Amino acid sequence: MFLYPWYCGTKMLGMFCARAFSLAGCRTATRARSLHVFPGMTVAQIDEEVAKLLELKVKLGGDEGKHQFVLKTAKGTRDYNPKQMAIREKVFNTIISCFKRHGAETIDTPVFELKETLTGKYGEDSKLIYDLKDQGGELLSLRYDLTVPFARYLAMNKITNIKRYHIAKVYRRDNPAMTRGRYREFYQCDFDIAGQYDAMIPDAECLRIVHEILSELDLGDFRIKVNDRRILDGMFAVCGVPDDKFRTICSTVDKLDKMPWEEVKKEMVNEKGLSEEAADQIGEYVSMQGGKDLAERLLQDQKMSQSKQACAGLSDIKLLFSYLELFKVTDKVVFDLSLARGLDYYTGIIYEAVLTQAGVALVCTDAQNGAEESVSVGSVAGGGRYDGLVGMFDPKGRKVPCVGVSIGIERIFSIMEQKAEASAEKVRTTEVQIMVASAQKNLLEERLKLVSELWNAGIKADISRADLIDEIRRRTSEV
Amino acid sequence: MFLYPWYCGTKMLGMFCARAFSLAGCRTATRARSLHVFPGMTVAQIDEEVAKLLELKVKLGGDEGKHQFVLKTAKGTRDYNPKQMAIREKVFNTIISCFKRHGAETIDTPVFELKETLTGKYGEDSKLIYDLKDQGGELLSLRYDLTVPFARYLAMNKITNIKRYHIAKVYRRDNPAMTRGRYREFYQCDFDIAGQYDAMIPDAECLRIVHEILSELDLGDFRIKVNDRRILDGMFAVCGVPDDKFRTICSTVDKLDKMPWEEVKKEMVNEKGLSEEAADQIGEYVSMQGGKDLAERLLQDQKMSQSKQACAGLSDIKLLFSYLELFKVTDKVVFDLSLARGLDYYTGIIYEAVLTQAGVALVCTDAQNGAEESVSVGSVAGGGRYDGLVGMFDPKGRKVPCVGVSIGIERIFSIMEQKAEASAEKVRTTEVQIMVASAQKNLLEERLKLVSELWNAGIKADISRADLIDEIRRRTSEV
Repeated sequence: MFLYPWYCGTKMLGMFCARAFSLAGCRTATRARSLHVFPGMTVAQIDEEVAKLLELKVKLGGDEGKHQFVLKTAKGTRDYNPKQMAIREKVFNTIISCFKRHGAETIDTPVFELKETLTGKYGEDSKLIYDLKDQGGELLSLRYDLTVPFARYLAMNKITNIKRYHIAKVYRRDNPAMTRGRYREFYQCDFDIAGQYDAMIPDAECLRIVHEILSELDLGDFRIKVNDRRILDGMFAVCGVPDDKFRTICSTVDKLDKMPWEEVKKEMVNEKGLSEEAADQIGEYVSMQGGKDLAERLLQDQKMSQSKQACAGLSDIKLLFSYLELFKVTDKVVFDLSLARGLDYYTGIIYEAVLTQAGVALVCTDAQNGAEESVSVGSVAGGGRYDGLVGMFDPKGRKVPCVGVSIGIERIFSIMEQKAEASAEKVRTTEVQIMVASAQKNLLEERLKLVSELWNAGIKADISRADLIDEIRRRTSEV
Repeated sequence: MFLYPWYCGTKMLGMFCARAFSLAGCRTATRARSLHVFPGMTVAQIDEEVAKLLELKVKLGGDEGKHQFVLKTAKGTRDYNPKQMAIREKVFNTIISCFKRHGAETIDTPVFELKETLTGKYGEDSKLIYDLKDQGGELLSLRYDLTVPFARYLAMNKITNIKRYHIAKVYRRDNPAMTRGRYREFYQCDFDIAGQYDAMIPDAECLRIVHEILSELDLGDFRIKVNDRRILDGMFAVCGVPDDKFRTICSTVDKLDKMPWEEVKKEMVNEKGLSEEAADQIGEYVSMQGGKDLAERLLQDQKMSQSKQACAGLSDIKLLFSYLELFKVTDKVVFDLSLARGLDYYTGIIYEAVLTQAGVALVCTDAQNGAEESVSVGSVAGGGRYDGLVGMFDPKGRKVPCVGVSIGIERIFSIMEQKAEASAEKVRTTEVQIMVASAQKNLLEERLKLVSELWNAGIKADISRADLIDEIRRRTSEV
């Protein structure tokens, strides 16, 4: 009944393979001879030639033979089995409860956006965006995060004030490291506050949310690093980084959580062309960590205080810490000048949460550098303020100030999975309350009637196959 | 701080636009002149030429100028605002409760699969599959349904027995009709039973599930049409359709819910080359509807009874109806010989549910054919038996019998949205229990302390902006 094109590659239905091939055979020569390529072609002419060539390629059998069918999921992705789904549901419930406790609404956006919507938002990371094939019509890309679609949504609907969460998968053509919870398809749980508020109030709420969620998930100790783009820019300015190198040097600083300072410095000097002196000055600042006191000290710093931007950022950090004290979360928050975050769109405060407990670091024993630091566990949440992003989409450039946080849960799943495996507790994957069975092959009608009545009464019930007593035993022991 | 490439189209970061253009200018002529196209090219040569041409196109500015930035979602897709999300959550809860009541586990699979995984599964609908751009690495496509990924999952993990549900978005490059709830990105809620069971037991359970869900969602009256691929094939055989035209004629029969018989017949005869006589005989059968009695009558039918396949299908329909009687759902189920379903992979029973209430048909007043039939509301659920699909993925071809149903909820959302708009009841989009506010600008610290204590106690609370009394009023009136 089915003809499966096991050896026929990717393009044709099995039934038509043979015919398509013979057709191709007799037409190839004609087609190829009728192709012309002139010097000084226009875009339209190129499009036409490309279409002709691709048509010819299909007739020749295309990439046929190169590929052999492999039974797997796409690189960097994975299925979730019922046990993993049970764990995932638990994690989501904790996170959603927290978002709802803070009065957030939720929205959803499509998995792909117009390519133009994503263009120019992610800096050097743009190369990691998945594009869809041009099959006629619009040029599309898979979403890279939930923040840019959110900003597009706000501009499109002229919304100037909302507190919303959005839980969905995002896509990055990154180098996957799946044992460490790094995937090409992964969930983000985003919480954002858009609108004009008193300075640092929504920013403090985002940090409070990270604190609540990581505490409730019970993943061991954690730290939330905080910095500000204006402090980074001010620091670059006073250290003598040329204006047009701020973003690229920022991307390099962002690698400090994965590489030691010496390598970061080397990249700055050798690849990005920064002077050794400027790099060294940056090196001094990015080693600083502290709290409100550090912000106060830097406001007095002879060099740093020369930058208006840096001072604005430092004053806000001070204000932020005073609110964090009221929220009782300063125990986990650290003002850390090495925190950069790669994305282009941040304009103010930025933050990132890392798990620091030794037990958790076990997940990362396959890290490249032998010496295992607690920091190398990697970030499980991050975010910041992006006051310019909505204005990029608004036809009149109207700005809507926004701040938000994204919980990256794949790593959290990995840890919860390890925990579940280590514990004796069985993860239930169904909620069956009653299993209807009989010890003999008859009574089928009675079983069907009974289970039907149970369903009517809203009771979770299942019928077992009479011929598979083992199956019954397995399932009833689960119940 | 941000440079947004508003007029720069799709490819380049705003900052580098000017430089890239001038570079393109001086190189174009050289590049174009160095292109050669020989007659009788090989695939490798074509690939090379295509790459050269596309490179040249990028340097020329590509599709630049054709596009202008538009603030919209991709064609055939939409955002869900908080109100729509609240309705969506309600629908999902009803559906998931039903799946869990029937003892199902849940899984999740990636949004894209290897292109080869989807090849040869969807017949004439394959042209609607979204492909990802070849950016190096694997060739990928967005999933077209949840059934093929499920079969791939079973084969990959050697699972021979599972009852699972999966709720996720699927993608089809179809002609969207969004006012009628037809999108290019849409949710499917799938429930499937894999494994060797007594005949028609899991099939009957799937129909029972459709009945439960459509009753609970309270969408007005509905009908579940049932048929069997073996009956269709037997019917085609005895009506004189050549073997190699079964699938394509089946696709044409599938259009009977959208086109009148005359047009369907015309397509069979004029486009698919069927004889007028055969078409007329098919026309007689596909007008038949009934219950168990119709199956019994057709088993006696002089022509139909000549086909072993048809008889096997008809006996199973009889058995199915006897179980549906026990499940008390025969009131809505109709044995309908015109039901075909387009997908290639079905091997036995097939079914489709349609809403029949007049009020619901309102949604479709923009239908092409003036006369509005209740049937034109379109299907809200469909499925069937696919005993061969898992075997297509298994390296040794081992089969796992499967039957399942897919609830298509976009149309259901549309109806629920219309209902919500018509009713006076307000849809709440947050769950805030307490709004902390003060009538004056001071007391900020006190408000923050208070809301922090409320959050600690697990109470859903929000702080309002002191400067926006209107905002407070709006929100508190919601609460």
